[in-house]
Amino acid sequence: MAIHPIWDQFPTIQKELTETQKIMMSSVKIRNKEMTEALQLFFKSGGKLLRPAYFLLFSKFGEAPNGKRRLQYAASLEILHAATLVHDDIIDESPVRRDLPSIQALYGKDIAVYAGDFLFTVYFQLLSGASKDLSTLERNSVNMRKILIGELDQLHLKNNPNITIKQYLQHIQGKTAQLFQLSCYEGAHFANTSKRVQLIAQRIGYNIGMAFQILDDVLDYSSTEEDFHKPVLEDIKNGNYTLPLIYAIKENPDYFSILNDDRDLTDDEIAYIVKGIQTFGGIEKASKLAERYTNKALSEINKLPNIPEKEIILTVTTKLLHRND
Amino acid sequence: MAIHPIWDQFPTIQKELTETQKIMMSSVKIRNKEMTEALQLFFKSGGKLLRPAYFLLFSKFGEAPNGKRRLQYAASLEILHAATLVHDDIIDESPVRRDLPSIQALYGKDIAVYAGDFLFTVYFQLLSGASKDLSTLERNSVNMRKILIGELDQLHLKNNPNITIKQYLQHIQGKTAQLFQLSCYEGAHFANTSKRVQLIAQRIGYNIGMAFQILDDVLDYSSTEEDFHKPVLEDIKNGNYTLPLIYAIKENPDYFSILNDDRDLTDDEIAYIVKGIQTFGGIEKASKLAERYTNKALSEINKLPNIPEKEIILTVTTKLLHRND
Repeated sequence: MAIHPIWDQFPTIQKELTETQKIMMSSVKIRNKEMTEALQLFFKSGGKLLRPAYFLLFSKFGEAPNGKRRLQYAASLEILHAATLVHDDIIDESPVRRDLPSIQALYGKDIAVYAGDFLFTVYFQLLSGASKDLSTLERNSVNMRKILIGELDQLHLKNNPNITIKQYLQHIQGKTAQLFQLSCYEGAHFANTSKRVQLIAQRIGYNIGMAFQILDDVLDYSSTEEDFHKPVLEDIKNGNYTLPLIYAIKENPDYFSILNDDRDLTDDEIAYIVKGIQTFGGIEKASKLAERYTNKALSEINKLPNIPEKEIILTVTTKLLHRND
Repeated sequence: MAIHPIWDQFPTIQKELTETQKIMMSSVKIRNKEMTEALQLFFKSGGKLLRPAYFLLFSKFGEAPNGKRRLQYAASLEILHAATLVHDDIIDESPVRRDLPSIQALYGKDIAVYAGDFLFTVYFQLLSGASKDLSTLERNSVNMRKILIGELDQLHLKNNPNITIKQYLQHIQGKTAQLFQLSCYEGAHFANTSKRVQLIAQRIGYNIGMAFQILDDVLDYSSTEEDFHKPVLEDIKNGNYTLPLIYAIKENPDYFSILNDDRDLTDDEIAYIVKGIQTFGGIEKASKLAERYTNKALSEINKLPNIPEKEIILTVTTKLLHRND
């Protein structure tokens, strides 16, 4: 159960993430062995564990008890993330997740529906056990609501070439930034840091999440399958019009009029779209907006109190958001 | 927004259920109007609101504040039930739910996945707001875990003619009895009744749930579509082998050897199976077991303190479980 190499240079957090992963593994042990194995394999498959990691790192800015509840809370955040991934893969019919077949590809959509639901219950259970008070549960439930509204937005905006930048940003805020924001904020809150640090943590999480998702959407157009560790050009194939395309459409709507036809695109047409996105500066502009969110995250990180974890957060965030893998 | 006629003779609970339904309706208002309308239509479509009703009735055995939190808790239970129904309809490809097209039939499986997820978050949010303490959340999360394990059991046991009575009972306990049990127990607990009343409530809920599900499975074979308000013979078509069939297979395995073939059944073969279930006493035996659970529920109800709600619980439960519609 190796933890992702991004944590290699930080043995303390690496060790805590190993513990977190153990909690995740044991929390999905049920009498249905097939399901247990599928979920454990998924957890072993080397995600970066970013959400628990940020939670754990921010919980060092105050007086977090180094106990089991802290690791449980961290685990719950990754489980919630996993639940949404399992269901996203149903919608997108993704064959692959983290270099492994997705659960829907392995076991079919039916099992994937309940597998995702089951993960929601595990999240709920870990969280109930880890929380100090009811307000934690209330914040988490508001967070989950926003994530789901973001997911519903995405479906609603599918195949719509008139999607605006504002709609796109609103959607990724729910789908991605929301959980990063919660993870950072909750870490600081769990450790009873000052209100000021909690709000900085929240802004850091928000900006990391926005930059992370925009970069992911850029890489779907500009990376190769090998580098990206998942299939590329999935967004356009699935009718999800992301920022690079939205910018390009704005620049030259006529070039993209083909998107108004209500049918699946051929491979030639997809190549034509990709070419258009490059020609009309879609990749460049989207990368620039990602950079603005990244810079905002980094400048907020600089405001944090000077403890060793500040450096870790800075290093990892820089690596994460300037990534080209 | 008429409440189901089963509550017509009980104006107090009828009024409270109307309030509960209002909370359900407003809790699913989101910027995605299509989704809001779909879910509101679903809530209007006249379910019996049994789970909130039992919660509200049992909360009269103690000192429940007659406030909004009590109605919110009741609403959360029905929303959790609705979430599982929306996802069940994906798995079973059900075209109809409560005489209306199911959400998966109306909007497709993709939207139904997120619609169910969204309902889970609404449940979580209502519950966090309504709960008095963290232990309520913990009980609810354990409950949700058991429901989902029950659902996974059902998938796991699909198309398996060797399913045992024990496996069937374990599965319906999770899938159905669990939430009835929780609703009754939590009502009593919410009102700070004695531990004794809470445990009686729990047993009543468990036995009602078991009887209710077995009867539902019997009616799938013995009722007509018009009376049942949903398609009949769905279980065998979906590969869910329920109690009437399990009893019949036990009586005459050879007759049912056709089920060992790994393919969909023709209409003639389904008629052959239904005939076998009748011939080998499957309907009769399953009805008898349902009756045992019903009698246990009624005898537990008789142990409740003598307040007017005891009579309501008795009348409604009798009507519910001796139903032939």
